[in-house]
Amino acid sequence: MIIETPEHGKEFHELDKTQIEMIIAMFKLRYNQLVADERIKYIQIYKNHGLYAGASLGHSHSQIVGLAFVPGENQGLPQYYQDKDSCLICDILKQEKEFRERIILEGEHFLVLCPYASRFSYESWIIPKRHTEHFGELTEAEEKELALLCKKISMAIVRGLENASYNFIINTAPVNSPYQPGYHWYMEFTPRLIVAAGVEIATGVYINPTAPEFAAAFFRKILNQLEPVK
Amino acid sequence: MIIETPEHGKEFHELDKTQIEMIIAMFKLRYNQLVADERIKYIQIYKNHGLYAGASLGHSHSQIVGLAFVPGENQGLPQYYQDKDSCLICDILKQEKEFRERIILEGEHFLVLCPYASRFSYESWIIPKRHTEHFGELTEAEEKELALLCKKISMAIVRGLENASYNFIINTAPVNSPYQPGYHWYMEFTPRLIVAAGVEIATGVYINPTAPEFAAAFFRKILNQLEPVK
Repeated sequence: MIIETPEHGKEFHELDKTQIEMIIAMFKLRYNQLVADERIKYIQIYKNHGLYAGASLGHSHSQIVGLAFVPGENQGLPQYYQDKDSCLICDILKQEKEFRERIILEGEHFLVLCPYASRFSYESWIIPKRHTEHFGELTEAEEKELALLCKKISMAIVRGLENASYNFIINTAPVNSPYQPGYHWYMEFTPRLIVAAGVEIATGVYINPTAPEFAAAFFRKILNQLEPVK
Repeated sequence: MIIETPEHGKEFHELDKTQIEMIIAMFKLRYNQLVADERIKYIQIYKNHGLYAGASLGHSHSQIVGLAFVPGENQGLPQYYQDKDSCLICDILKQEKEFRERIILEGEHFLVLCPYASRFSYESWIIPKRHTEHFGELTEAEEKELALLCKKISMAIVRGLENASYNFIINTAPVNSPYQPGYHWYMEFTPRLIVAAGVEIATGVYINPTAPEFAAAFFRKILNQLEPVK
């Protein structure tokens, strides 16, 4: 567990950019330490904010779990690479930069967008432009920009969507496992406005009433209205 | 949508057994009518009860969705059959009858149990003993017993677990699709006591703090304490 601030009651989106930089630096440090344990095959970094996102403690925190196996959910990227001989995330970056309507923000190192087939309403991804498989490969310049983008997106979710619960998750390549090409790490913010119901539990198919083009336009507008990030 | 009762405010678990029989007969009727539409490849019957189960309407109802494809979640049973040349659900029935500790109830036609690797706390399955692939193959005698068991399990969940939200889902074989052996329909009750958090969303791996042996013993005790089902 990463305790994000000594101040009880202060939330992630309220922290200064430099504090979020420290959190991300700690994620990277812990990630790279966990890789050294050969029993660990997958490292999941995530945060639960609010009741509907499964937060069980009031004090702002995020979590890192080392799994002894590679979860099935993590097989889409190498599968795509096998089929197309191309990285899915790089292909998404290219396509979205042409289409533009699902982009929220563009930085020097990252593109922030609402993905075409969003599982959750107002789902947003922060994608490194550099094809890097592991979160642990983050450079210092990328760390700084990622912190700024995390601050903006979490502010936009909580303040734009009436104090919504949300998770963030960092999707990354397996570790200590046979090499499979096609991974490209990225960060996913999932507002939890709708509860997964019977059909989602049964089929794994998510019903999402919010078009990603609408969500991206909404976030662009909200970010223009909020005070500049310090 | 199946409107389960004309009485607004009356919940599924409060209905008479004969009313639940009529609901199940309607599920079967609609299932077998939807099969006639060749565009439909999978039929999902489900119910959302309560806020944490995704219920969006106050009046008691359940839902039937026809999908134009077979969802990925539905591939476990034929995969097991291919690997082991045996039906997973029949194997579970055999194993659980020997072990006994995860069984809640046994009827003439169904076994009710808390499965070994429950995804949700207090998850319960109603499994037909007869190896039948499709829910639509339900006989009249099975319908009557299934209604009684649905009444008991839903009562035990709502009254035993402090008015818990729950879903039920009916898992069945695909329709209008190439034949794959290994399907065996069954019904799943999923109390929604814990919100799926970042780790579940990211990895598909569910953290469940309640051992199924404990849950089954709890349900057996609650059902002994509740008034007999009329």
